[in-house]
Amino acid sequence: MTKPSKVSCNVDLAKAGKQVGFLAAPHSRNDSGWGSARFPLAVIRNGSGPTVFFTGGNHGDEYEGPIALTRLIQNLDPARVQGSVIVMPYLNAPAVAAGARLSPIDGVNMNRAFPGERDGTVTRMIADYLTRHVLPRADVVCDIHSGGKTMYFSPFGAIHDLDDKALMKRAQEALVAFDPPIALILRELDAEGMIDSEVEGKGKVFVTTELGGGGTTTRATLDVAEHGIMNLLKHFGVLEGKPVRRASRGLAPSRMMTMPDAAYVIADHGGLLEMLVDIDQAVREGQEIARIYQVDRPGEAPVVYRASCDGVLLGRAHPCLIKPGDFLAMVAQQA
Amino acid sequence: MTKPSKVSCNVDLAKAGKQVGFLAAPHSRNDSGWGSARFPLAVIRNGSGPTVFFTGGNHGDEYEGPIALTRLIQNLDPARVQGSVIVMPYLNAPAVAAGARLSPIDGVNMNRAFPGERDGTVTRMIADYLTRHVLPRADVVCDIHSGGKTMYFSPFGAIHDLDDKALMKRAQEALVAFDPPIALILRELDAEGMIDSEVEGKGKVFVTTELGGGGTTTRATLDVAEHGIMNLLKHFGVLEGKPVRRASRGLAPSRMMTMPDAAYVIADHGGLLEMLVDIDQAVREGQEIARIYQVDRPGEAPVVYRASCDGVLLGRAHPCLIKPGDFLAMVAQQA
Amino acid sequence: MTKPSKVSCNVDLAKAGKQVGFLAAPHSRNDSGWGSARFPLAVIRNGSGPTVFFTGGNHGDEYEGPIALTRLIQNLDPARVQGSVIVMPYLNAPAVAAGARLSPIDGVNMNRAFPGERDGTVTRMIADYLTRHVLPRADVVCDIHSGGKTMYFSPFGAIHDLDDKALMKRAQEALVAFDPPIALILRELDAEGMIDSEVEGKGKVFVTTELGGGGTTTRATLDVAEHGIMNLLKHFGVLEGKPVRRASRGLAPSRMMTMPDAAYVIADHGGLLEMLVDIDQAVREGQEIARIYQVDRPGEAPVVYRASCDGVLLGRAHPCLIKPGDFLAMVAQQA
Amino acid sequence: MTKPSKVSCNVDLAKAGKQVGFLAAPHSRNDSGWGSARFPLAVIRNGSGPTVFFTGGNHGDEYEGPIALTRLIQNLDPARVQGSVIVMPYLNAPAVAAGARLSPIDGVNMNRAFPGERDGTVTRMIADYLTRHVLPRADVVCDIHSGGKTMYFSPFGAIHDLDDKALMKRAQEALVAFDPPIALILRELDAEGMIDSEVEGKGKVFVTTELGGGGTTTRATLDVAEHGIMNLLKHFGVLEGKPVRRASRGLAPSRMMTMPDAAYVIADHGGLLEMLVDIDQAVREGQEIARIYQVDRPGEAPVVYRASCDGVLLGRAHPCLIKPGDFLAMVAQQA
Amino acid sequence: MTKPSKVSCNVDLAKAGKQVGFLAAPHSRNDSGWGSARFPLAVIRNGSGPTVFFTGGNHGDEYEGPIALTRLIQNLDPARVQGSVIVMPYLNAPAVAAGARLSPIDGVNMNRAFPGERDGTVTRMIADYLTRHVLPRADVVCDIHSGGKTMYFSPFGAIHDLDDKALMKRAQEALVAFDPPIALILRELDAEGMIDSEVEGKGKVFVTTELGGGGTTTRATLDVAEHGIMNLLKHFGVLEGKPVRRASRGLAPSRMMTMPDAAYVIADHGGLLEMLVDIDQAVREGQEIARIYQVDRPGEAPVVYRASCDGVLLGRAHPCLIKPGDFLAMVAQQA
Amino acid sequence: MTKPSKVSCNVDLAKAGKQVGFLAAPHSRNDSGWGSARFPLAVIRNGSGPTVFFTGGNHGDEYEGPIALTRLIQNLDPARVQGSVIVMPYLNAPAVAAGARLSPIDGVNMNRAFPGERDGTVTRMIADYLTRHVLPRADVVCDIHSGGKTMYFSPFGAIHDLDDKALMKRAQEALVAFDPPIALILRELDAEGMIDSEVEGKGKVFVTTELGGGGTTTRATLDVAEHGIMNLLKHFGVLEGKPVRRASRGLAPSRMMTMPDAAYVIADHGGLLEMLVDIDQAVREGQEIARIYQVDRPGEAPVVYRASCDGVLLGRAHPCLIKPGDFLAMVAQQA
Repeated sequence: MTKPSKVSCNVDLAKAGKQVGFLAAPHSRNDSGWGSARFPLAVIRNGSGPTVFFTGGNHGDEYEGPIALTRLIQNLDPARVQGSVIVMPYLNAPAVAAGARLSPIDGVNMNRAFPGERDGTVTRMIADYLTRHVLPRADVVCDIHSGGKTMYFSPFGAIHDLDDKALMKRAQEALVAFDPPIALILRELDAEGMIDSEVEGKGKVFVTTELGGGGTTTRATLDVAEHGIMNLLKHFGVLEGKPVRRASRGLAPSRMMTMPDAAYVIADHGGLLEMLVDIDQAVREGQEIARIYQVDRPGEAPVVYRASCDGVLLGRAHPCLIKPGDFLAMVAQQA
Repeated sequence: MTKPSKVSCNVDLAKAGKQVGFLAAPHSRNDSGWGSARFPLAVIRNGSGPTVFFTGGNHGDEYEGPIALTRLIQNLDPARVQGSVIVMPYLNAPAVAAGARLSPIDGVNMNRAFPGERDGTVTRMIADYLTRHVLPRADVVCDIHSGGKTMYFSPFGAIHDLDDKALMKRAQEALVAFDPPIALILRELDAEGMIDSEVEGKGKVFVTTELGGGGTTTRATLDVAEHGIMNLLKHFGVLEGKPVRRASRGLAPSRMMTMPDAAYVIADHGGLLEMLVDIDQAVREGQEIARIYQVDRPGEAPVVYRASCDGVLLGRAHPCLIKPGDFLAMVAQQA
Repeated sequence: MTKPSKVSCNVDLAKAGKQVGFLAAPHSRNDSGWGSARFPLAVIRNGSGPTVFFTGGNHGDEYEGPIALTRLIQNLDPARVQGSVIVMPYLNAPAVAAGARLSPIDGVNMNRAFPGERDGTVTRMIADYLTRHVLPRADVVCDIHSGGKTMYFSPFGAIHDLDDKALMKRAQEALVAFDPPIALILRELDAEGMIDSEVEGKGKVFVTTELGGGGTTTRATLDVAEHGIMNLLKHFGVLEGKPVRRASRGLAPSRMMTMPDAAYVIADHGGLLEMLVDIDQAVREGQEIARIYQVDRPGEAPVVYRASCDGVLLGRAHPCLIKPGDFLAMVAQQA
Repeated sequence: MTKPSKVSCNVDLAKAGKQVGFLAAPHSRNDSGWGSARFPLAVIRNGSGPTVFFTGGNHGDEYEGPIALTRLIQNLDPARVQGSVIVMPYLNAPAVAAGARLSPIDGVNMNRAFPGERDGTVTRMIADYLTRHVLPRADVVCDIHSGGKTMYFSPFGAIHDLDDKALMKRAQEALVAFDPPIALILRELDAEGMIDSEVEGKGKVFVTTELGGGGTTTRATLDVAEHGIMNLLKHFGVLEGKPVRRASRGLAPSRMMTMPDAAYVIADHGGLLEMLVDIDQAVREGQEIARIYQVDRPGEAPVVYRASCDGVLLGRAHPCLIKPGDFLAMVAQQA
Repeated sequence: MTKPSKVSCNVDLAKAGKQVGFLAAPHSRNDSGWGSARFPLAVIRNGSGPTVFFTGGNHGDEYEGPIALTRLIQNLDPARVQGSVIVMPYLNAPAVAAGARLSPIDGVNMNRAFPGERDGTVTRMIADYLTRHVLPRADVVCDIHSGGKTMYFSPFGAIHDLDDKALMKRAQEALVAFDPPIALILRELDAEGMIDSEVEGKGKVFVTTELGGGGTTTRATLDVAEHGIMNLLKHFGVLEGKPVRRASRGLAPSRMMTMPDAAYVIADHGGLLEMLVDIDQAVREGQEIARIYQVDRPGEAPVVYRASCDGVLLGRAHPCLIKPGDFLAMVAQQA
Repeated sequence: MTKPSKVSCNVDLAKAGKQVGFLAAPHSRNDSGWGSARFPLAVIRNGSGPTVFFTGGNHGDEYEGPIALTRLIQNLDPARVQGSVIVMPYLNAPAVAAGARLSPIDGVNMNRAFPGERDGTVTRMIADYLTRHVLPRADVVCDIHSGGKTMYFSPFGAIHDLDDKALMKRAQEALVAFDPPIALILRELDAEGMIDSEVEGKGKVFVTTELGGGGTTTRATLDVAEHGIMNLLKHFGVLEGKPVRRASRGLAPSRMMTMPDAAYVIADHGGLLEMLVDIDQAVREGQEIARIYQVDRPGEAPVVYRASCDGVLLGRAHPCLIKPGDFLAMVAQQA
């Protein structure tokens, strides 16, 4: 582990001003023997203050992060900053360029690749570089997700339920500052290898989001991202001023929610999915929420899926073609 | 043209009652030497009256048609019918099974394959069979589209502006009966080879739709399909009763719209697309409606796209990764 | 049609002796700008007598033809021949080299490509060349098939039921001379575009076979091919002597069989196929012959398939993974 | 290694009765962000007695196991059982669903993936789960193989020659109980990573088979599997009664065979393979057993392969297209 | 043929000044339902004079044309022009973008697609548009090729031997004006479908080239292109001044060459190619010019290839991995 | 590490005479269940003396090594040898057979796979075998590279700048003996995992080369390889006689060169590459050496690249289609 990373960085994280550069990982290909894979990284730094690390495009088909953070890079004046803002708008840049969740180079899910591997494939090399050289500098990490091409969520910000209660409190305050439409205490289906745990394990504040999905953005979902980013920078004193509240902009205030044990509904059958409930609607335990029809046998009765608890439909499968074992729906409850 | 089709049909279109079967086209594959490709078809027939032919899944990633028509097959009681209802819920069935716009067998767009080819690839063989054996029986054809994985539209029903004014009038009455949120007189980017022209050229009523998109459905978009299907059957006397109006269900009445010359905005650049206007919002000529950012160069300023006329944003590119020559947006105007 | 073929042949079909060469079709590829595709062809010619054209590898995963005909080319002494023996052991040579039914170059089934197209893709160009330049020279064509990787047949020789009764009689005599274990009057699922019809339409004798399958050969199936080839050459006087009968070799004599209307059983379901009857076994109408289990749902009862007529199981699907619309079984009856 | 597996199981292995469920491994895909891969598993348990673990579909193109074990799950009445029968009919379920030897998810051979890796790809995660949670419960493991699409074997049951002679004796008794047509003491070409060694290393009885192959089944090969499964359950007292002997069913008794040092013949050349000897035939050292012809050069003499010892042809390459380094044949000798 | 093309052009060929635009062909894709494929086209027009149409990138891996013509578009001042210069630097633009000879959209070789098909795939649609709308305007067409990734040629300019001797004379004068290192009277391996024949058949002057190859360019090969382009424009009076001669630039004067009957050497074997003669070297009939070694059998002697006539090695296969039927070498002779 | 390798070798490295055989790694494939991958290896041994190990085809698209070493195997008479010559002309044999830099089996770059992994994929297994069984026998290793399909170099031989000055001296003497046109002290972009470091770390002499490239060879580049191989064998006393000097053959003497810090130029933009300087030409710092044009936007000005130091252009990107992060050029300086 003491050998230096094979990844290089053409930006100086300690230098004041605005720099836009990249991490480069060696990537020998049949079509470029001495090629490399580049992962854009910007730093905007001035005066003294904490370091906030923003990431988007952790999955390559989630677009609020890449767009809002590209705009942050272009519009943030270093003179207004006290501290450092490090931005990787396309954390899994090859996946973003391909419009796919996973890296087309090695098929790896960046968000299951942490803490990374120095000698691993490109995605793992980058995770290792971040774990060694970027995360230690950060006081706060904000990783902006949305549902991607295969899921859709009512836009929410989230933190995890942490054992370290002091850290949990700081994270909660950061989430309140972010001021999302819904503020969720999140439980993961499969949490290992996430950047989340890597950051939290180092005792740092971690805030994440799921801002819509389906492989697109709207003005509304982008606005949640931009509103939260600026609020977070103000909350930590990197920008001057107080976080702006939704109410002051004529929007419903942030709702606090939690996930019950039976939050996830998983498909047991493949076929055409008909959702019977729309996002944000209330459901009651046992209520029909979806039907799955056999593709190519339109005469046969569908399988019916029911809600396994009371609550609100917070997330759903986006595509209408579903396979056994796929995520179907997620229900959350008022905290 | 006098040689019989190589496609076979295991359903008797002239027989009363409900039959659910398929068209089968021979399809020799490496993994099935004497295989075939099947295209489900149902007929529900009783008494006397006109024949209405419903199709969905003309493009395999548009789901309102497949789901609403599968439900029609399962729920329509032949005893209630006067005439014939022919239903192909997955017109391009292999594409529907693959969740893709085009057939995975031959790469063909079913809606550019008409009138078809007896000796062509599978998609063209099916188009030829329909042109010869199904379209001649139909008095009315209703082809239910939505935007698919790469476009999104404010749900509308549509007819074309026809030279035959008597036919146009009958089509307009059918569209009014369908009672969509928006009723549009449509202009196509590339109209040749469509089932539309084939039907209209035979002097028959043709109604089509674009009901949302993005590769998913909601209760709201499915409702537009189901409402319209039942209304159409009533309008033509196949079912008893009068079409139900949106207003009677507490919904805004159908709006009549047209497409100006400058309706379509096409992308000249590739990159990350940020839409600045949401569907159904008003735009004014010259207003910024979108920005395209270079993927992997977050420091460089985006290209700006502007509306080329006044109107309402009726359709947009769904994915946030766009290429030069792609459809970007569509503006329509109050009729 | 009067333009010369783009295919070239480096063998002189009119010259005496043994020549082994090829047909070459121009085939510009990304990895060879001025490349070509080669289709081996041999001619063994001497004295005067009829021309017999043998083909194997019409489908690239059927091996009795390629092996027996390669051996014929190597072992047949021109001095023993009166007339011409033209041999294409790999009719669809690129498919044979790929071990696949269809050509990897254009995806075309050679046996649905006749009479061919001068300006078509490689497979169609070759079919056109044969139709124009080789078939007219032949008095008899013998095309050796077996089941390929996806079907298995009890080894049989076959002719079609022809309207031209004089030709039919000559074909029947040739089939009797071929002396296969089973001699079948064949009905095709989809006959158009076959070399068979092209030959028969020109008033020439056509004999075909299905000699086992499953993508392999055994000594027994190869023996049927070699026995038949030599017998055919003797029957037509190209070689001296009389056809050898199976009985004289201690084998059961050839059985004459026909195909009833309900000969073919087609799968309506996909899944794991369990055949309950083995090849050559007798079945009775209504008898269970196969079960199909859902892949990945081992707890659910299978679908049962039954024989649709009395007879003997002459052919079956070879793989145990089957799809809707696939050939499942074929039953024949004693003539 | 003390971290819990990421694989979940929806069946309780300790509960009496019949349960049919699955193991699920998290599997994030571009077409399902929160997807999983499922591996069916059933348990039939009652009273007290040993635990027998049956597996099929270790390679996804070998079908006797999946079919016979699916039938076992459906037909075995828990009331008749004393002990536990655990069944995984598709050990490499994604490979079975694809009809391929290796997993289409990660390209891994399940039978070289043991003892598995907790953090590895899907196939290795499942192997790790089995090593940790299922193998420790089993007293006996019976893994049913056949030759798959690329090999064919005379149906045999087999055990390895073990250093632990007491275990070897118990394995031999189990093999005798299984009562296969041929009972072989097997030597592997490459034994590492097999479930076999994992089980034997834990001091447990392991029985395996090769029951035909070529990517299909017949009634005869399925019968060997079903006969052996029931006999094994009786031998270990899970079912009442004594194993049934082949002789009592009018079949030739089981033959004991061993593999000489020179058992394997490997191809040094690529091309069209002609086998000169059929399965189960006797061969003598030096006898010609196969020829390989150059594909596309039918005029050139083949390379000849000879038996490297006396014995019986027990296995062969199934396809007729072979590559250098491929398995060509296997010879065994009477024990 | 009277239906208008589906291809659109955003440039007015009749307007004076410099316009850079494109042809657009509709191209519905799974990732862009209403997408199109664009083919850049520029026109530089002024005063009166002939129309010269320059094309490059007819094959997408030949680079002298695309680079020299891109520079022509950028550097040519319309004020200096008398007549029209139409430029398509990437005739098969999708192939150029992919770095491949053939279009990745439909696999079609643009130079075998003429005269095109209105209803064909994208490449054929573009050829049809050019045949109908651009070629009729041109007085002279100059199509700049080089060897691409799979061939290498000593840089030459060329015309065909035409039956129309007056046209031939004009073409020869144009070739002399182009002033290439070698001026060749070319014979094609397979001439049908080329833009060449389409142009010549209309009685217009056609000049082509092969300027190096191997998928790259050098200053020297680019210089041949740029020198020739300017000379051609001067020769036809579009630019003022006289063609510049090689000699005046210190280069060896253009050599006139022809192709003998035995000019082409084709590989009969696959393997590793060792060329024994370099480009531009003299060869004598019967001289060893190449050896082909079996890949993976380094102990076996190579096959030797010999020159089939006296002359100079003008072209060769570029890659060292060759297949039967591939172009190996081309020999030309002093005229 | 004490477990034996799974790779087998059919050649005895300790036996006198000439043997040509292979290493075989087990490689279970869907199309060959018990298949293996073979890597040819020859040994020519006699009397006593050092062991020289020659490798070519480390990258599968570099051809001087495979051809020159195949010829060495065929032509070297063991009687002339004192010591051992071990030759692997295709170090990454599957890559050579595919004409690709990386192995098509596992996508691995052989020259980043050292010291290898016993349980890794095929390429790593072979590296491990060599590290354990072949490198320890060698006194000298000479690994012959060239630029492959994506780079081109002025032919040079090279050694690394080593800390062990005694070893460095021996390496330098070997390089002088090799007598290449240019003798370079090389600095790697990414050195880890190379066979180079493995050999040097064991205190052995290592000589490498870059002999041209572009995926082809010429007589001139092959001559550099053959000249150097024979010289090296003479230098180490394996063959009798003294190394032959270039001057004695009428060639310019070897030039000693080094690489400055700013030797490498990397592309920051994708597009069409126009090199303004040819290989072996002198450049001055700041001089324009290349332009990159946007593909499909011929009207837009190119990006210009400049030399970052004085020197000679020793290497360049070979293809004209380049991506951001690709190697563009390499400048070296007179030592």
